[in-house]
Order: sequence, then structure tokens, then C-alpha cells
Amino acid sequence: MARGVGDLPPEELRRLAHEVSDWIADYLGSVGDLPVFPDVRPGDVRSRIPGHPPESGEEMEAALADFRNLVVPGVTHWNHPSFFGYFATTGSGPGILGEMLSAAMNLNAMVWRSSPAATELEEVVMDWLRQLVGLPEGFDGVINDTASHSTLYALAAAREVAYPEVHAGGLFGLPRGRVYASEHAHSSVEKAVMALGFGREGYRAIPSDDAFRMRLDALDAALKEDEAAGIRPVAVVATLGTTSVTSLDPVKEIVPLAAAHGAWVHVDAAYGGPAAIVPELRPMFAGWEGADSIVINPHKWIFTPTDCSALYCRRPEELVRAFSLVPEYLRTAEQGQVKNLMDYGVALGRRFRALKLWFVLRWFGRAGLVANIREHVRLAKQLASWAEATEGWSVAAPVTLGLVCLRHAPAGMADEEADELNQRILDGVNASGTAFLSHTKLGGRLVLRVAIGNLKTMESHVAALWSLLQDAARAATEA
Amino acid sequence: MARGVGDLPPEELRRLAHEVSDWIADYLGSVGDLPVFPDVRPGDVRSRIPGHPPESGEEMEAALADFRNLVVPGVTHWNHPSFFGYFATTGSGPGILGEMLSAAMNLNAMVWRSSPAATELEEVVMDWLRQLVGLPEGFDGVINDTASHSTLYALAAAREVAYPEVHAGGLFGLPRGRVYASEHAHSSVEKAVMALGFGREGYRAIPSDDAFRMRLDALDAALKEDEAAGIRPVAVVATLGTTSVTSLDPVKEIVPLAAAHGAWVHVDAAYGGPAAIVPELRPMFAGWEGADSIVINPHKWIFTPTDCSALYCRRPEELVRAFSLVPEYLRTAEQGQVKNLMDYGVALGRRFRALKLWFVLRWFGRAGLVANIREHVRLAKQLASWAEATEGWSVAAPVTLGLVCLRHAPAGMADEEADELNQRILDGVNASGTAFLSHTKLGGRLVLRVAIGNLKTMESHVAALWSLLQDAARAATEA
Repeated sequence: MARGVGDLPPEELRRLAHEVSDWIADYLGSVGDLPVFPDVRPGDVRSRIPGHPPESGEEMEAALADFRNLVVPGVTHWNHPSFFGYFATTGSGPGILGEMLSAAMNLNAMVWRSSPAATELEEVVMDWLRQLVGLPEGFDGVINDTASHSTLYALAAAREVAYPEVHAGGLFGLPRGRVYASEHAHSSVEKAVMALGFGREGYRAIPSDDAFRMRLDALDAALKEDEAAGIRPVAVVATLGTTSVTSLDPVKEIVPLAAAHGAWVHVDAAYGGPAAIVPELRPMFAGWEGADSIVINPHKWIFTPTDCSALYCRRPEELVRAFSLVPEYLRTAEQGQVKNLMDYGVALGRRFRALKLWFVLRWFGRAGLVANIREHVRLAKQLASWAEATEGWSVAAPVTLGLVCLRHAPAGMADEEADELNQRILDGVNASGTAFLSHTKLGGRLVLRVAIGNLKTMESHVAALWSLLQDAARAATEA
Repeated sequence: MARGVGDLPPEELRRLAHEVSDWIADYLGSVGDLPVFPDVRPGDVRSRIPGHPPESGEEMEAALADFRNLVVPGVTHWNHPSFFGYFATTGSGPGILGEMLSAAMNLNAMVWRSSPAATELEEVVMDWLRQLVGLPEGFDGVINDTASHSTLYALAAAREVAYPEVHAGGLFGLPRGRVYASEHAHSSVEKAVMALGFGREGYRAIPSDDAFRMRLDALDAALKEDEAAGIRPVAVVATLGTTSVTSLDPVKEIVPLAAAHGAWVHVDAAYGGPAAIVPELRPMFAGWEGADSIVINPHKWIFTPTDCSALYCRRPEELVRAFSLVPEYLRTAEQGQVKNLMDYGVALGRRFRALKLWFVLRWFGRAGLVANIREHVRLAKQLASWAEATEGWSVAAPVTLGLVCLRHAPAGMADEEADELNQRILDGVNASGTAFLSHTKLGGRLVLRVAIGNLKTMESHVAALWSLLQDAARAATEA
């Protein structure tokens, strides 16, 4: 129909929001019955959607029907209890309610004045999270969308410290600089280094030990070698919970080593950080309080819908120095008395992300977060113990948090052949639709990653995956 | 209560989502009765929230009550019909429904495989939007969170083109380079230039003419002067709808001028771009199809909840060259056959933002978008005509789109005195709670910005604002 002026009327929105609420509850109650990975080929979904936008407005019922019939059957279900790919995450109920309200209010907390309560709630929840993970006072937190941007901003602050001249003149004519991270660091670190103008040579991957942790001797040697060559050490990134294997770099030793070379220490705890809430897991984080900046993603393991990345900085003034530019149209009377969140990064616009995190922290409480994270680690160790006890299977990396790296290689099978076998197992599991995995390579060899982190994942789902893996292995061996 | 393992049960979520849906419909139906800007001082909201996170889980009812009692009275209501600050935007009903579903599914479309339908729907809606604004085929669009990041990514591609060596070696040792934009360009352009390692000297603001448009002669002179000094022109950013005054730079002439100097042309149409959907407004955009990249924010004037920024690029391979890094754990069998959205920027994680935009484009249709944007422009011109006809008031910049810049200065009043008077008017309007404005400075003089862009804003709200402005002017004059 031809729309006139105005929005969907509130009473129509009410009716549709109720309908959507029922769909959401039904979906979350039954998503486990859907195929985790859809049976689609590239282009299938696109080909079923008109190539041109509608001239006249359509009814929302038609759009919602297409959502159910075209979109839902074509997505990978991240909220499925048997989603074990990448890092399994959860958009939890309290977080969904927060997102609903954020969307309705559509606030933009770029400066305090543009939404005082959103700014102050962000300050409060960032301080709550700091306390939950046991970081000392003095770590100032802001919420960004992703760890990729949090790391970019932290390394921009590091650049500002390493090169006071960069603010005015840029990197032109300055001595070369480098950022160091383990060979298992996330690709976002190298992307940030590229974005910041250091080039790929501005990034140096440090070899890891047999538990996939950054080797201190190798870091020390790299720093010394580079310094002797006139290359300035800008930052060392320590990862607590690497993406491939959730290994934890020895941050306690990295901090003084980096400090001795004048390098900023950024800790990528995007995945791992939430585990510091659990008392018996916190010792793995010892020493991170010495870092200059730390990123922790509530959207990874604090059950907060994507996106919500917390960047903590012990030297927030450096972040602000790297990014604060206040044009007249954003200058307010409160300047200097309040936190204006836009000063801490590139993004000016900012959704009201603190609300969903506040709801999550309140509904779970510390005890609920501990119970769930602890359970995910227990399930990971359980799966690892089953695999270790089974001939032909091996656990390819120590299980530290919620990830298990598995490999199937019958005795005597050549590595290349086993790689192909594991690829067939991966494809078999994913094609089954009953579980979803991703993979990595360790020492050049293909390894299956089983990430446990969804709130719906119970021991029965892990047990079913283990059966499925063994079945897929048998089928792949016979193939 | 002490939470065990698991999420808020689906049936509890159903009940609460219904409750929240009712709150949303009530809120959107009555937000006009709330104060637009809250009666709070810095720290008020923070002081009313506990300083420590709860140990045990709380009921969602308690969190929702605190949301209503502590948060809502402390926010600036962007969805209020008399919100005229910054750029007035709308989180429309169809968009809110989209956000509800995105939050529930919690997809992460970093690669095609991680959510095929989310990737393909993004391709479809980006192409729909391209058609709606009349850009030719060949502009490839991706959704980012904000224009700040879209511009950062576009300028990273420009840097890649200007300096093929930057990919490997960074900016060290390369000849200095610069990005050019009007003195009225958005601060995010300079922020992006700083982030990319060019420093503040890597940014050159070009003077504008008496309609606040970038002066071509000044751009030409700057490019020649810099080239003579060995400074490489990296990019020229043309703004179509500047933040202070919604002026439109002469993009048709900027494109060949920049091309003659080998500079990338990025168009910041974050605010203005949606107006190209309206036939009689499209001529203002003539020539933008010659740009290398264009940013348009559906969350500004296409009634899409924050955040949703569309980056179009005619040379997407340069964006990919700047950012593509595919670690093993993200390598998939479809590599090369599909679009992996993570390759087009820094952020790896990406919410399912295409869904809300799809809903918006379908519910409004082209006709509904045209009707609403056209009406906002009509209201802006209406307000301007009232002001022009009133003694002591002036319209400080041509009204091109949905923004009116007003200044009150009784005959004979000195500029400085009039600045103070306009500040008092601004403070008076905002303190009233019945409307919200922001300001800018033009030629050093304070100007009141009235941005019209919310779907709930009717002529009656604009008329009420006009009365309020005149009352506030009288009160401020007498004060």
C-alpha cells in the first residue's frame, strides 16, 4: 500500500511485537530441533528475494512470513545448543529484552548530554564487570562493538605513547615500529596494525611453546633484535584465550619484559576474560592487572547478544589523546565534568549497549555467571576425557577453558591422509545439521574445534556430538 | 536467587517479552509527553545504581522496574517528536521488530558460512538501497556500525591506492600524504585520518563559500600547493549534507579535480544520502556516482534503529586489499565463491543488521520513504519561512534538507551579546523539556540547529517549537 507520513502506528507495533515475542520464545524453545547449519548453496537465499525494492509499502506480515520462510531456513543457528563453531556464544533472554528496549529508545550516547543515563549506566556496568573479573580500580572501561575495534583503539593509544610526534605529523619520517603478538594471536591484531599504518612488517608473530603460549625467550630475542635494528617496540599483545586453542600467554612475565622495552601491553581476553569471574579459573589471569589495556567481550562468554566489547584501559588519557576531537556541534556545557564516550574511539554514534549487559549481570548475578562458565569448562574437559580414552582420537591442545581441539588419526595413518579424514569428519558433522563445528590448523595439521559456550548446551548435547563425531569418523574412514 | 545452569527459560522470556512489547508500544505512543531532555545533573543516575554487581541473580522484574524508574527518566529521548538535536532520527516500528529478531538469533555473519542468509540478505538490501538512491551498478555495499568506521575503511582503501608500499612497510619512510575535506566536514573524517597514521597535518580543511560548500578554487590551490611541496593527495572527502548546516559540496566538480591529482574521492552522505530517494531532491547529488566510495546511514534518515551505516565502494577490491587477512580458523570451503563480509573492514564480528533495514524498506516502500523525507524537508522550509518573516530572527544557512540553522539577534545587538542571547535561548528550550536542540558555530557565531527527521514530528511540533523559541527569546532578552 502507499504509505503516507509517519511510522507503523504504536497499536500495530504492539500487535506485531507480541507476535514476534511469541516467535522468539518458540524459537528459543525449539531451536535445537532445527538444522544448525542450513542446507543451502551460495546464492540460494539471494535468488529467492526480489532483485528490486518494493515501490509501495508492504504489510509487516508479509515481511515476517518471508523472514520465517526464507531467512530462518538459511541461517547458521548460533543460539542452537549444538552450535560448537568459532566461539559458541549466547544471546540470553535478559540480553534480548535489553536489545528490545535499546532498539525502541534508539538512543545515541556519543556525549553525556545526548543521553545522560546511557552514559552513566555504561560507566556503572563497566565498573561492575571490572570487579567481577577481579581487575583493580583504575581500569577505565568503555563499550565498543567488537574486539577488533577495541584492539585497534588500544593500539592507537600505544602508538600515541611510542611516538608523541604521530599526533601532529603522522608516521611519515618516524623510525619503524612494531607490534608483537603470539603466532596464535587473533587476526584482528594484525588487521589493527595494518589499519594504523604500520604495514604487515609492523607486525611480528612470536613463536609459541608446546602448549601454544607465547615463548618469552622468543619475545625477548625479537625485541632485542628489532631494537638493535632501530625498530621501536610499540606494543606487545598477550592473548588470554587464543582463538585456535584458547591457550593463555604468560602475561605475568610479558608485562615486565615489555615494560623494559617501553612497549604498551594490550591483553586480548575477548574470549577468555569472562573466565576470570570463576574463582578457580582466575589464577590463569595472574598478571593481567599489569597491562595497559585489556579487551573482554561480554558478547562472547557473558551471554550478551552481539555486539558488546569492553575495552579497559589503565591510561585512558592516552586513548583520549589519540581520539578526542570535539567539533563545535558536539561541544556541551558539561565538557570536563562528564565522560563523553565518543572521546574513547573512532565511532561517534553508539547504541545503548550498556542496558543489555546490565540486565544480564543482574539476572545471572555473579553466582549465575560462575555456574554457567564453570559448567562449560567442565563439559569441555569431559569431552576431552572421552576422546583421550578412545583409540584413534587425540586432544590436540590442552583444554584450558571451553574449547576442545580434537583430531582423529588411526594408528599408522600419514599426516596428510589424516588431514583429509578430519576434513571429511568436519564436513560430515556439519552436513548432518545436528551439530556445527569449525576447525583450525596446528603445526600445519587440521584439527576440529569444539567450542562450548552456549547456555543451552547440556551434557547430553556434548555426548551426542561425541557419538556423531565417532560415527562421522567411521563413515569418513570407509568413504 | 542463586541461578543454576542455563538461560532465562523460554516461557519466562515469553511473558517478559510481552511485557516489554507493551512497554515499547506505550512508550512510542506517549513519548511526546515526556521531557525530551531529562532533569538530571552529572552523576545523578550513577549515584542511584549500586556500586557493586549483585552476587546472586535478581528477578528481571526488578531490573525492568529500575529501567523504568532510573534509566528512562535520565535519558534524552531521541524517539520524541520534539527531538530536534544533532540529526533527528527514528528507530521505526519495522526496524524495532527487526532488532528483536536479530537479538534473539544472535547471528554473526563474519563469513558466509557463519550465516549464509544474513550475508546474502545484506547483499540484497545493499543493492536495494543503491537502486533507491539512484547509484549505478558497480557500487558494492556493506553494512558497518557507524559512518565513522565506514569513512575509516574507505580512507584505508584510498591509502592503499595512494601508497602501494603501505601494505607491507607501513607509512614509515613514505612521502607525506594528505586528505582534503571542507571546513564543514564531519569530525569523523579527521579522526579517521589520525587513526590511519597521517597525523593532524595529514588533514587539510578547505574553506567553504557563503553557502558553506567546499570552494573548488581553494581545493585546487591546496592540491597544487601540496603537490609542489611533495605532499601526496590521498583522498578528497566531499560531504553531501554537512553536520553543521547540511550544505552539499560540489561533488560533480570535485570528482574530476581530485582525479586529476590521483586522489580517491569519498562522499560522506551519511546524513544527506537518503534524500536522493526523493526525485526532486536527487539533482543535489548529481556527480556522486563518480566517487570511489560513498557512505549513507540508514540509521540517520531511513528510519532504521542505530546502528546501520552503508558503505558503497566502486573499487571494493581495494577495500579487501586493505583488510583481507584470512586466518586458518576462518577459512572455508566457499572461499572465492561467496562474499565474506569480514574482508571489507576491521570489525570481524557483525550483527545481523540487514534484517531491520529489510523490514524498513519493505514496510515503507519507496513511496513511504519519499513521502516522509519530503515532509521533513517541507517542515524545515516551513520553519525557515516563519523565522525569515519574523523580526530579529534570521536563517543562518540555506535550508537544503531537514535542518534549519536559526539565530536571534535584535537589530543593533553586538555579535558577542547575540551569542550569549542565543545560548540562553538554547538553554531555555532544552530546560523546558518540551523540545531539544543542539547548536553550532558559523563564522564564529553561535547558531541554533533545528534538525527535523523523526517520523513522529508533525507540523504541530514544529509550530510549537517555533512558539517556544520566540518565548525563550523574549525570556532570554528580559533576563
